[in-house]
Amino acid sequence: MSVSVDLNADLGEGFGAWELGDDEAMLGLVTSANVACGFHAGDPALLLRTCREAAARGVRIGAQVSYRDLAGFGRRFIDVTPEDLTADVIYQIGALQAIAHAAGAAVTYVKPHGALYNTIVSHREQAAAVAAAVHSVDLGLPVLGLSGSVFFEEARKRGLRTVAEAFADRAYQPDGTLVSRREPGSVLHDPLEIAERVAGMVATGQVSAVDGTTIPITVESVCVHGDSPGAVEIATAVRERLITDGVNLAAFS
Amino acid sequence: MSVSVDLNADLGEGFGAWELGDDEAMLGLVTSANVACGFHAGDPALLLRTCREAAARGVRIGAQVSYRDLAGFGRRFIDVTPEDLTADVIYQIGALQAIAHAAGAAVTYVKPHGALYNTIVSHREQAAAVAAAVHSVDLGLPVLGLSGSVFFEEARKRGLRTVAEAFADRAYQPDGTLVSRREPGSVLHDPLEIAERVAGMVATGQVSAVDGTTIPITVESVCVHGDSPGAVEIATAVRERLITDGVNLAAFS
Amino acid sequence: MSVSVDLNADLGEGFGAWELGDDEAMLGLVTSANVACGFHAGDPALLLRTCREAAARGVRIGAQVSYRDLAGFGRRFIDVTPEDLTADVIYQIGALQAIAHAAGAAVTYVKPHGALYNTIVSHREQAAAVAAAVHSVDLGLPVLGLSGSVFFEEARKRGLRTVAEAFADRAYQPDGTLVSRREPGSVLHDPLEIAERVAGMVATGQVSAVDGTTIPITVESVCVHGDSPGAVEIATAVRERLITDGVNLAAFS
Amino acid sequence: MSVSVDLNADLGEGFGAWELGDDEAMLGLVTSANVACGFHAGDPALLLRTCREAAARGVRIGAQVSYRDLAGFGRRFIDVTPEDLTADVIYQIGALQAIAHAAGAAVTYVKPHGALYNTIVSHREQAAAVAAAVHSVDLGLPVLGLSGSVFFEEARKRGLRTVAEAFADRAYQPDGTLVSRREPGSVLHDPLEIAERVAGMVATGQVSAVDGTTIPITVESVCVHGDSPGAVEIATAVRERLITDGVNLAAFS
Repeated sequence: MSVSVDLNADLGEGFGAWELGDDEAMLGLVTSANVACGFHAGDPALLLRTCREAAARGVRIGAQVSYRDLAGFGRRFIDVTPEDLTADVIYQIGALQAIAHAAGAAVTYVKPHGALYNTIVSHREQAAAVAAAVHSVDLGLPVLGLSGSVFFEEARKRGLRTVAEAFADRAYQPDGTLVSRREPGSVLHDPLEIAERVAGMVATGQVSAVDGTTIPITVESVCVHGDSPGAVEIATAVRERLITDGVNLAAFS
Repeated sequence: MSVSVDLNADLGEGFGAWELGDDEAMLGLVTSANVACGFHAGDPALLLRTCREAAARGVRIGAQVSYRDLAGFGRRFIDVTPEDLTADVIYQIGALQAIAHAAGAAVTYVKPHGALYNTIVSHREQAAAVAAAVHSVDLGLPVLGLSGSVFFEEARKRGLRTVAEAFADRAYQPDGTLVSRREPGSVLHDPLEIAERVAGMVATGQVSAVDGTTIPITVESVCVHGDSPGAVEIATAVRERLITDGVNLAAFS
Repeated sequence: MSVSVDLNADLGEGFGAWELGDDEAMLGLVTSANVACGFHAGDPALLLRTCREAAARGVRIGAQVSYRDLAGFGRRFIDVTPEDLTADVIYQIGALQAIAHAAGAAVTYVKPHGALYNTIVSHREQAAAVAAAVHSVDLGLPVLGLSGSVFFEEARKRGLRTVAEAFADRAYQPDGTLVSRREPGSVLHDPLEIAERVAGMVATGQVSAVDGTTIPITVESVCVHGDSPGAVEIATAVRERLITDGVNLAAFS
Repeated sequence: MSVSVDLNADLGEGFGAWELGDDEAMLGLVTSANVACGFHAGDPALLLRTCREAAARGVRIGAQVSYRDLAGFGRRFIDVTPEDLTADVIYQIGALQAIAHAAGAAVTYVKPHGALYNTIVSHREQAAAVAAAVHSVDLGLPVLGLSGSVFFEEARKRGLRTVAEAFADRAYQPDGTLVSRREPGSVLHDPLEIAERVAGMVATGQVSAVDGTTIPITVESVCVHGDSPGAVEIATAVRERLITDGVNLAAFS
């Protein structure tokens, strides 16, 4: 019996004249594309090209929803009201649904981006607002996020399927949350070390936390970043190692 | 046999703290609501409230798509490429579709706004780009616009249904286009005069142009403005006059 | 010897097609205008008209700086880095300086807006970032804010003059901070009651807090709001009562 | 007696997380930096870093003003009213003045960007609006632009100094205007050929137009692009060739 895992990355994160990351290369490596929705990145024409390319490659498309913050790339917490946040998320998912449809594809999951992702690990009001948004668009849309998060609690209350992801290149706290990017050692850089680490997570359901303890980790999808230096090398190394280990790479079902 | 006509108005055109027009009152008068989509006006939370209220009143919802121009309220021509325009329009329709769906309703037509509306009366590239966008979202979505426009030609090439609208409070050129707002006498203000004029258009299929000649006009829908001083009075006068004349007010089919 | 006090209000807070408040009326009542700078409100053409009108009326102009948040009207906390915040504030002050100069006037003080105002009552990093921005633009620019705030501490470290303001229509906590707008009773509405309260603050340097205790309050300027219902009536009542009491209304020196 | 010429390039054209061009390298090559002002590119923190670096390198700073169009990078004509355009330009210059001042430098000229640059070669209303803006900020600010343009006529009517620039890598029409980027052969790519061409312009005051005719060209400044592939190589080649020819590279006086 073979183990199967999804590989996801953030795509479509340029805007107008500005490019970010190597979407072309990443689409050849991942099984799921978290496509930006215009609030932190992604002008509509870029999103349409990205969805077309994902469709052509057979890569699954998810809506990467964000705070409304182009200048901050969605990386800054905004104290938005639940009412506004719910509407903002519905708006973004819908926009990408139409874009994906025009590209002959569909949005099949939702993943919050950046500061929103981090905030709803513990911020109940905003977590509930995002869950309510996804629920009101389509009960059948799974959400990608952090296992054990308040967001997952709220999503399950709404009957949404949750898909737990692990981060290939990030250090973990003993409680399973990520070490802040502001801390030294929070981001790993060596492709082979990262590939080894991911292979271990997938095989054992465990990972070594930043304090050296071994903690359990649920891995239905592995997030590889597309915008950091060496991103393509890292994603390539992770992909090849998993294939070598006999892991089946496929979008989560 | 009774004559039937649709009454449409622009709604949801505030943004954040800013309000515009009396949506509450207008929703009690019209049969179709052209709801903004966020590019010239309309933050998502306002759009959601507007769609909920429209749904509660049984008012049909259309996507009022625009150039991306909050500062200019979509009233300035932008020389956007057809590729960008198509994607911008798809994005906007999709965003409103999800909002309308969350409100228990649906987007059932598309109406371009402001400078985009005026531009595609004659600008073939942009007209084709808007038609392509509507077509790629949903072949079954009618477009509201000016009879005789290049936009209608391009929409029909795509197999889209076109719905010709007349403007209650605007003066017409002999060729059936609108007199520019910059010209004196381009906008009518007296509610009774406007109601009389609309009643005439609907009954006869003709209207008096600015030069005094009588011209033919196709009226499947009548546009009343919601943001001008006296807007509610004008819409009320038009509505009451049509009812008095035995005209059936109903969303176009 | 006569007592002198400044009356300030937020102005220029429309954007494009959207209007907010009755700037015309407020400019006839206040001695200082906190003019928006484009980040939470205020398109450049509106700012230019507002500065021209303020100059014509002899009303002092201040730069009302904000988080970058048109959709939230600057009323939502944003976790912006100090580096970005300093640059954002410099940018806004400079923009309004040129606008005021073109109107034959000048920016002579700085007042943070909305969530930024509230945040830097206690958030040291952001308070220091705003103080650094004002300092780097012009050492001679006073800042308007809350007495006892961390912002005033940081401003004084930089050698900036601080001008303490009292709010005409807001309830106070026993510690001198404002009762949150989300609490019942946080905002007063009766013009005569508000005028009476302001007259008392100015005459005695004390005000009654929400728990009934009397607390000291420093009043170099009184803030009257221009965007709430009844704003003009309230500002008129405050102005007339102070004049009746023999208080000299003048921009702070 | 030595010939002297200015080398200018567009800088500070990233936004938030997005970078564009190699500002670091370009600042080591040019004598004048056209720094973006936030309307087509340039978040305030980037602008502050760019101005600091320019100041440290002794590179002159100009305000690169644009239509308000982040999504289009200022490359799309917008039919903005003269009143709005004047205010938009004043706002942008002022914002950059404060940023430059905070960096220990100053804005010493103005250069329109992209579609605005091209439009005001012939669009009198917008040309006059930009000239009026510069005039109202500071009569002493020169404007960089195309010799023979309507913009230069309007600028001179206002008493502004005009500085004629030549484009290193662009083909010219026989009338001295640029061949549209949409035409084949409009942009030159070979560094040595470009350097040779610029050396010829500077030495002779003439250039070969796209039809082979020789036309006169006034060259007070040479524009090298920083955002195209090979930009740094081209700028380096131009700079080295001019130095080899004994031309003095210096910001225009």
